[in-house]
Parts: sequence; structure tokens; C-alpha cells
Amino acid sequence: MSSEKILPRINSPQDLKQLSLDELKQLASEIRATIIETVARNGGHLASNLGAVELTLALHYVFESPRDKIIWDVGHQCYTHKLVTGRREAFSRLRQSGGLLGYPCREESEHDIYNTGHASTALSAALGLAVARDKKNEDYNVIAVVGDGSLTGGVAYEALNQIGHLRKKLIIVLNYNEMSISPSVGALSSYLSYMVSGQPFLKMKEQAKSVLRSIPKIGRPLIKAARAFEELLKKTFFPGIFFEELGIRYVGPIHGHSLHSLLEAFENARNYPGPVLVHCVTQKGKGYRPAQLDPEKFHSASPFNVETGQPLCQDNGPTFSRVFGEAIADLGRSDDSIMAITAAMTDGTGLNKFAAEHPDRFFDVGIAEQHAVNFAAGLAIAGLKPVVAIYSTFLQRAYDQIFHDVCLMDLPVVFALDRAGIVAEDGPTHQGINDIAYLRHMPHMILMAPKDENELRQMIYSAFQYGHPVAIRFPKGKGFGVRIESDFNFIPAGQAELLKPGRDLIIAYGNMVYTALEVARRLEEKGLSLAVINARFARPLDENLIIEQARQARTIFTLEEGIIEGGFGSAVRELLDRHGLYQARFKSFGLPTALYPLGKPDEIRKLLRLDVDSLVEDISRFYSG
Amino acid sequence: MSSEKILPRINSPQDLKQLSLDELKQLASEIRATIIETVARNGGHLASNLGAVELTLALHYVFESPRDKIIWDVGHQCYTHKLVTGRREAFSRLRQSGGLLGYPCREESEHDIYNTGHASTALSAALGLAVARDKKNEDYNVIAVVGDGSLTGGVAYEALNQIGHLRKKLIIVLNYNEMSISPSVGALSSYLSYMVSGQPFLKMKEQAKSVLRSIPKIGRPLIKAARAFEELLKKTFFPGIFFEELGIRYVGPIHGHSLHSLLEAFENARNYPGPVLVHCVTQKGKGYRPAQLDPEKFHSASPFNVETGQPLCQDNGPTFSRVFGEAIADLGRSDDSIMAITAAMTDGTGLNKFAAEHPDRFFDVGIAEQHAVNFAAGLAIAGLKPVVAIYSTFLQRAYDQIFHDVCLMDLPVVFALDRAGIVAEDGPTHQGINDIAYLRHMPHMILMAPKDENELRQMIYSAFQYGHPVAIRFPKGKGFGVRIESDFNFIPAGQAELLKPGRDLIIAYGNMVYTALEVARRLEEKGLSLAVINARFARPLDENLIIEQARQARTIFTLEEGIIEGGFGSAVRELLDRHGLYQARFKSFGLPTALYPLGKPDEIRKLLRLDVDSLVEDISRFYSG
Repeated sequence: MSSEKILPRINSPQDLKQLSLDELKQLASEIRATIIETVARNGGHLASNLGAVELTLALHYVFESPRDKIIWDVGHQCYTHKLVTGRREAFSRLRQSGGLLGYPCREESEHDIYNTGHASTALSAALGLAVARDKKNEDYNVIAVVGDGSLTGGVAYEALNQIGHLRKKLIIVLNYNEMSISPSVGALSSYLSYMVSGQPFLKMKEQAKSVLRSIPKIGRPLIKAARAFEELLKKTFFPGIFFEELGIRYVGPIHGHSLHSLLEAFENARNYPGPVLVHCVTQKGKGYRPAQLDPEKFHSASPFNVETGQPLCQDNGPTFSRVFGEAIADLGRSDDSIMAITAAMTDGTGLNKFAAEHPDRFFDVGIAEQHAVNFAAGLAIAGLKPVVAIYSTFLQRAYDQIFHDVCLMDLPVVFALDRAGIVAEDGPTHQGINDIAYLRHMPHMILMAPKDENELRQMIYSAFQYGHPVAIRFPKGKGFGVRIESDFNFIPAGQAELLKPGRDLIIAYGNMVYTALEVARRLEEKGLSLAVINARFARPLDENLIIEQARQARTIFTLEEGIIEGGFGSAVRELLDRHGLYQARFKSFGLPTALYPLGKPDEIRKLLRLDVDSLVEDISRFYSG
Repeated sequence: MSSEKILPRINSPQDLKQLSLDELKQLASEIRATIIETVARNGGHLASNLGAVELTLALHYVFESPRDKIIWDVGHQCYTHKLVTGRREAFSRLRQSGGLLGYPCREESEHDIYNTGHASTALSAALGLAVARDKKNEDYNVIAVVGDGSLTGGVAYEALNQIGHLRKKLIIVLNYNEMSISPSVGALSSYLSYMVSGQPFLKMKEQAKSVLRSIPKIGRPLIKAARAFEELLKKTFFPGIFFEELGIRYVGPIHGHSLHSLLEAFENARNYPGPVLVHCVTQKGKGYRPAQLDPEKFHSASPFNVETGQPLCQDNGPTFSRVFGEAIADLGRSDDSIMAITAAMTDGTGLNKFAAEHPDRFFDVGIAEQHAVNFAAGLAIAGLKPVVAIYSTFLQRAYDQIFHDVCLMDLPVVFALDRAGIVAEDGPTHQGINDIAYLRHMPHMILMAPKDENELRQMIYSAFQYGHPVAIRFPKGKGFGVRIESDFNFIPAGQAELLKPGRDLIIAYGNMVYTALEVARRLEEKGLSLAVINARFARPLDENLIIEQARQARTIFTLEEGIIEGGFGSAVRELLDRHGLYQARFKSFGLPTALYPLGKPDEIRKLLRLDVDSLVEDISRFYSG
């Protein structure tokens, strides 16, 4: 390997095309080092990005971005793409305030065609582009890069269905990185790659098919004899038959770290006139041993030590996810009707403990939020107690199922919405800010949010006893460090708590309760007296407590880490209006409906004026205004 | 055929089991007559229900409902089920106030296991039941009856994926009623049914497979030669390979109107230990010629003359759907970048005219709302102007796509939400009442609703010019009979209109504007002076006009046909608060978050106090209270 670095010379994909195969290999290795070093410092998606280095280089070598359109599904694999499309310098500020987003971003570069972040969307978008291209008589390639995980999402299948139907020229790169792929696949792969994707074979096969089509009948005994044989052939040698059935040409499997094989496969795919899927087998974490050994841990990593792979920040108190996971595991021990469901987020949601203790009652359905919810509905119908743990932003995908399959039937399904509120380093696609507004109008739904990790534990326990759909939202990251009771204490539905008396009133929801207390304390020093209510429930609201306090207040504030439009504050406002309490001034503090910038959570809160200082300032101004 | 009627003797599925095959056939014929006569009187889903008569009788003959659980996907095919499960008498009041729901309904009968109405949900729910059954060591069958249309929905695929993975005992009845099925399928069907579903063959095949599995290698030339042959075999004789690939045993195709074949197939399926799909080929509208000839027209039919098949009520003015359809067709003629997309609702949305005139720019993606939206996003990225026409209630399924794939990227996709508001005769699952609340917090989204069909036409025209995501909601059924301008007139985003001056204020949205005017006129007679604003936009609100009027009002009302919680009224309230207008009393009129009873639209409005009389009464009381 040459000692002169190649990466510093790569300012656009054009620069790749000058490189030899050996130089491309060296570049791959430099890119890996850059990714590891940057993610170790800033955090980010490591394992998936290390797996897609060669695949990305080969794509940019064969295709002409941005004329050819490459769409990165989810975007967990776009770092190499960012590095070779003119963002090498900016890459050091990946996921940091003012820096590069960890996902494709149209505002960053003309090479980013379509913003992603949620899974399984790229195929539909790619088909839209292909249809538009043909309609306008334009001439470019559309390439969707999709992981096998994303293919479990129903919308991806809906797209495949229409892709096969319309037969537009379209290239799907399946980045298959299941750890279960055995090394022996490699040998078969090269052979099949040549055989299936080579032009001569395509022609030959078309001819053979048309000849066979002209034969009108085939005798029954022949069919019977052929079937079992065909079954064996199929399973062993035609793994792509699923796609072929949908009308999509299958190519592969391709060794996803062999630049030679990738270049050949992509060139062949470029020449195919219809939809084609190139099945690339890659390894998550490729080139960094700790990530190869534990790809789930390094899927979305916090800053770590490159030598050891150990996280840099010490474990100072449990996360909300862990408290949730432990509560569910504890409850599961005494109640064997509790069933836990997640959608490809076993570790992230903290359900790994429950999964280990009760494997028969744990279901990871893959990236399939809609099915997760309906499956839970089926369990509830049969008298079991399902809990569905999905991040707030991803549960959006099951809006209709929550409404139609759970709430209309008033089924007792518990939803645990992790990552609710500001999810700072992931940008606009991952904010968990809509859930209050999108769940608040569902029949029978009970909405709750704990002020801290101990209250979360009690809420999980209580939720299973309400006999209705319940959604509990809680934030990403560490708790407040409060003591966690091992006993479970029941919180009746709709019971808030008055934390501090006062003349006027702040009603706070979830993780903003302590902020409200601190704001009230600071304002007390300024001579303003504010009671603080921990609402606990956005629905049903504690009508008695709130109205009682509101009657004596001349100004009422609400405080939440959710969008203002139709959110918690809006619910309180509706309650006050319903009771005809028009005498008080009202102001809700929450989040704007907008695209969120990158930054640390507290930076974002400050920017959006939801930190203690800003709130003290804004409330003071409200009084003087 | 015996002259004595059998249907009057059928009070539960048990009574079926006493019947001979000939008697079952006679019963099928009596049920058809009852369904035709009832739907001709009350309206309802005719074609799909006529197609499922034998299939339903065979299921109830072979299985033991309610011990065995039958889940009807969508529910468009459950009338026979209702007739033979003790609801024969009530059936005459199908879809009428106090009568039977047109969909499965747990509150009606223990034989209705799971409420449906939206498509593609049954498989997930069935899997939930099957898992629960095995966990509790219970012993019953779970049967999901699914149409081929429902299988295009992504959530159905997500479910198949896990069904194949878990391999629980579970029976899927695929009610395949594509009109394209040629009669020759029938002959093959009986043969394959015997061959594939018979126990002896299952065993033989398992043995053959295990023998073949033990052969370590097969030479390359053999593979090459076998492949083209295998392809032909597969396409012709193994239509179920798609399901087999997912791990689900395929049986069929079965003649779906042959009771004999159905009984045999279901009995075989009952004995299969894992997931099995029985592919039944049925004909929509079977037994009623007008419905056979035009199944789409008779999918959801209004009352009609049984002799002629002609609708009973005369066409007195166009529906909102038709006005929308004509506006889009007109616009499409002068702007060839307009692309229309629907999800299995070409006629219902009025897009048939556009589809006929511009077949290359029209896309029916099937029941795949998520993909419809993402596909539109792809078209918009490429500079085209997509309109996505989906009923309000079904667009719920694409909540996340609207947010993540359209609004975050601020793509100019126009959403036409037909059937927004009260959809009376279809019950709780079809109300289009949530859209304002679920769309109101999406970044960049513009929300509009016309006061009448002429304003709808102008809004469609205007929407394409805003350059942002736009959602236009309009109600089911006839317009108000106003004159429709052929010219298009531009309405600037966020421009409301003051329709009537007054001291206090009603701000009305969409189809409630004329009601507001009439209410104001009636209250004027009582000495109450109310201005009326046609808001036109729920977002952005016409801040200037509303605030100007609100400043001088002592009482402000909002009026909408959407849910109150987080809806249009809530948006107005937020605006008033933002401007510090605390002096006025405020009350919003709209719909409750609840399960809606059956009835005519005006009956429901009266019940929910959204008719003129009730509003006059409630507003008067508000003033005196």
C-alpha cells in the first residue's frame, strides 16, 4: 500500500474514476480509518457504515452522481458517500452543531437526492424518480441502496410490488449484512454473479423462456416428478426467487467487500433494461474488530476508545430505557401474561433483559411497526398483556393501527415510547416530538409521561392495570439520578400531583417537570408565585386538581417537550375553555413544528428556549408585557 | 331445489352442520337473494359479499365458531357470516341507525372476533391469537380471511413475514377475486387441491425433500439446464411459490364457489400443523348479473333497483369527488406535469376521468397508502406535480410518510382527502375526522377545506401553485348545488373570507361554513350579532382577518366537522393566545373523540349537535349561561 494518502485528493466522485483497483482498495482502508476515528470522537452509526465502504466506492465508480440518482435507505450507511462527495473536511464535525447530518441531506449536497432517517422508504422514492425520468424522456440511472433489515418494512414491499409491475429501469442494491451468512457463500457468489449478471446469459435465458412459453402443455406426471427436485434447486441456488416472482431481476449474491465483484455486478446491472436487484453480502463493522464482534452495540455508538472499543463516558446512573427494561422484566417475572414486542430495537428499548428471561414471550418483529401493533392487538384480544416498545418517531408509522386496531376496540395494549422529545444528534427525522398530538385524539387512549425514571417504573406497572390502550412517553438518555423504588406503586389514571403551591400556575408534563420546579423557584426570588403541577397524564387530565388550581390563578403556563400545535398545552387549554375559565391569561411552552438543527440536547433546548434560563426570562417578560 | 326455505332455520353455525351438500347449495342461493334484496334497499358492499357466500358457509361448516376464531380482513365480505351467526333478523337493518354494522363488530356477536374496516390487518391479528393460543396451551383454530387486494398492503406482508418465521398453526383463506382469472383455472384447481392439500402428498413431499437435502452437490451444467425449465413450471403450476418462500404452505387454487372443493380444502387445512394459505378463486358479484358485470360500481353500492341494477336516487348535482375529478382532469390537460395517484380507489376518488385521459400519468398503486405517498415524493423530487387522492380515514396509514418523506423535505405534493368528516353508514372505522389534528403539526404543511364544491375546484387549482405540501379535505357525497365556475381562480395560501359582519364571531371551516351562516342568521333574529368567517385554511390561518375580527368580539366560536381535540378550533385558540387576546370567551364546536353510531349523515350531525338547530340552541345557551 502506498504511503501517500489518497482520500485527501478525492473532492468529488469524478476523482474516484482515475484510481486503479489497488488504489480503490487503499482508499477503502483510509475511509475506514477516518470513519472509525470520527465516530469514536462524535458518536454515530459505525457498524453499518463500515460494512458499506466498498459498495459505496463501487457505486460511485460505476455511476455518475449526481446525474445518476443514488438513494440511501435509512441512511445508516452514507458516511463513505459523504466523504467522497466533497464533504471530507466537514466530516470531522459529523453530528455536531453546525456540522454534517448523519443521514442524507438535500441541503448539504446535490449528491444527496432524498432525505432519509426512517427505514424502507427508498424503493418508493426511487420508483418515483424512475417514472419521472421516463416521462420526461431523460436518461439517468436511479439506484436505491437498501439493507435487508429495511426489507421487512411493509412499505418496501408495497414498492417492490409496483416496481415489478411497472418494470421501469431501476437498480436496487440490497446491502445484506446478516451475521448469519456463512463464509461458504463467497465461493458460490462469484460463480453466480458471473452466470446471472453477465449479458450473454441474460439473452440466452430470455430465448429459452420464449421457447418454453410456446409449448402448450406439459404432462402431469412430469410435473409431479419435477416439483420436489425444483424445490431443492430453488432453495439452494436461486435465493432471489422471491424477487423474481415480483418481476424483479435478481443478481447475486455478490461479495460485498470485493471491489472487483461489485464493479462487475454494478456494470452489468447498469445495462439491464428493467428493475434489477443486486444482492451484496457485507459484514457489519468490517475492518474494526470490536464492531465486527458486537455490531448491535456499534450500530449507533456513543464516543468510544478506538483501542479498546469501550465507551468513553462512564455509566453514571441508568437510562430511561434501562429503567423501562428492568421494570418490564420484573413485572414479567410475576405475571406471565405480559408479552413484549419491539420492532428491531431489542437493545435500544432495554427489552434485552426481558428477552433473555422470557424468550417465549418476547417478539422482535423486525422493522415492521404496523404489524407490531396489530400483532399486539391480537394478543390482547386473547387476554394477554402486550407491551409494544418503539421509539416515538418510529411509532408514527403505526398511527392507523393504533387507531383502528387498538383504540377503536379499546384493547389494553401498552405502548412504551422511548426517545420522546428532543433527540438531538440525529437531526430532524428522529425527533420524538409529535406523539402527544398524534395520540391525543384516539378513542380510549390514556397518555402519560413520568417526571423521572422512578415515576416511569410506577407508570409501567400502573399501565397494565387500566384495561385500556396506554402510551407512556419518556426521553432518550440518562434519568435524573433519583432513587428507584423496588416496590411498585399504583398511580390511578388521570391523577396528577401538586408539587409546589403558588398563586399562578405552571402545569408541566413528563421530563419538563423538574425544569418547571426550578423555573418556579427562580421566579419566586423575583417575587412571582407559581404553583407547579406534575400532570403525569395528558389524557385524561386531572380535571379536579387543574381546575381547582386554575380557578385561583391569573396566569397559567403549560410546559412540555412536544410540539405546541395540538399538544399537551392545547389539551389543558381545551379543558379550561370547557370549564369556562376565561379569566386567566394562558401561555404554552413547547416545541415548534420545524426542522431541528444538530446539537447536544441541552444546546437544542437552549436554542428553542426550553431551558431554565430562557423560561425564567420569557415568563418574566410575559408578566411585565 | 326444495321449496321450503332453509335460512329461517339457521340460528347459529351449528345448524349448518346438519345440512346436506344440496341443502348448503340451496342455503347459498337464499343468502344471495337476502343480501341482494337488503343491499338494494339499504346500500352496502354487494359484489364482495356475493363472492364470499360459499366460502363462508364452508368455513362455518368445517370450523367451530366462536371456539375457532375467524377474522374477516376489511370486512367487506362478512354479510353471510352475520346471517348465519344469529343476526338473520337484524340483517334487514344493515347499516341503518340502531341496526347491524356493515363490518365485523365485537359488540354485536361473539362470532366477531376482531373489528375491521381498514384493509390488511387480519393476518397480524390472527398471528397474535395463534401465539396466545399456544402460549396458553389452548386448542382452537385461527382463520384469517383475506382478499387479494388486501395483500398489497404492506402490513399484510409484514405479518406474512413473521407468520412464516414463527410457523404457528394458522389458516389463511385467500379470497382471490380478480376478474382476470380465466375459467380454465377451475380444472387445474381441483387437481392441485387434491394433490397439494391431501395428507398423503404432504408426507410424501416432506420425505422427498429430506432425501434431496442429503445430496451434497449438484453439478453446474445440470443447474443451468434445469433453470429455464423450472421457471416455466413455477409460473404455470406453482402460483403459491411466493408464499412457500416465506415459509407458508400453499394450497390451491380452489374453486371458490364449489362447496365440495372448499369443504375438502378447509378440512385438509385444518389438519395442517403450521401456517397454510388456501387460495380460493371467487367471482365478485357472483349470482347477480349487474354486479358481475360491473363489480367496481357494486363494491359499495347505494340503494338500487334489483331488476335493473340502476341506482334509486336520481343524480341531483355532482358529488365533491366528481368535482375534484373534473378539476384534476381539466388541470391535467393544460399541465402535463400533473401526476395522479390513488390507492385502489380510482372510481371512488373521481380520478377515473383523469385516468382515462392521461393513462400514463395515473397510478393506482393498490391498497398501499404508504407507498403511494413515498412514490409521490419521488415524483416531486424530480420536478413533477403529484396529487395523492385517498380518503381521510385511509390516509391515516401514511402518517409517517407524509411527515418524513414529504413534509420534512417540503415537497410540493397535493393530498386530496375525500370522505373527510362524518361518513355515516360505515360506522366507526371509516369516519374521516382525525385529519386536521394529525396533519396540523407537520412542518410546511398547508391545510385547506372548501366551503362548497366550487371552492374545492379553486383550491385544487391553487394547491399546485403553493410549492409546499398541501392537504385539501372535503366531505363524502353531494355538493351544495352551487354554480361551478369553469375558470380557475387563485386563492392565496392563508386567505380567509369574511362572509358576514357582526359583533361577535364564528370562524367556520370547510363544509360547516353554510351551517355557520344559517346559525348566524337565526341568532340575528334572536338579537345576537355574529360575524362569520370562512377560514378556508386551518394552516396557515388568516392571522390578520381573524385577529382583526377577534379584537372586537366578546365571544368567539369555531365550527368544524373534525375532532375537537387538537383540531381546527384548537388552532384558532392557539392563535388567539399567541396574540394575547384573552378578553373574549371561546368555544369550539366539532366532533368528539368517540365511536360513531350508524345513521344518515344528518342524523349523526343532529346526534352530535352539529346541525343548525342544535347549534342555535347551544350558542344561545352559551350566551345566557
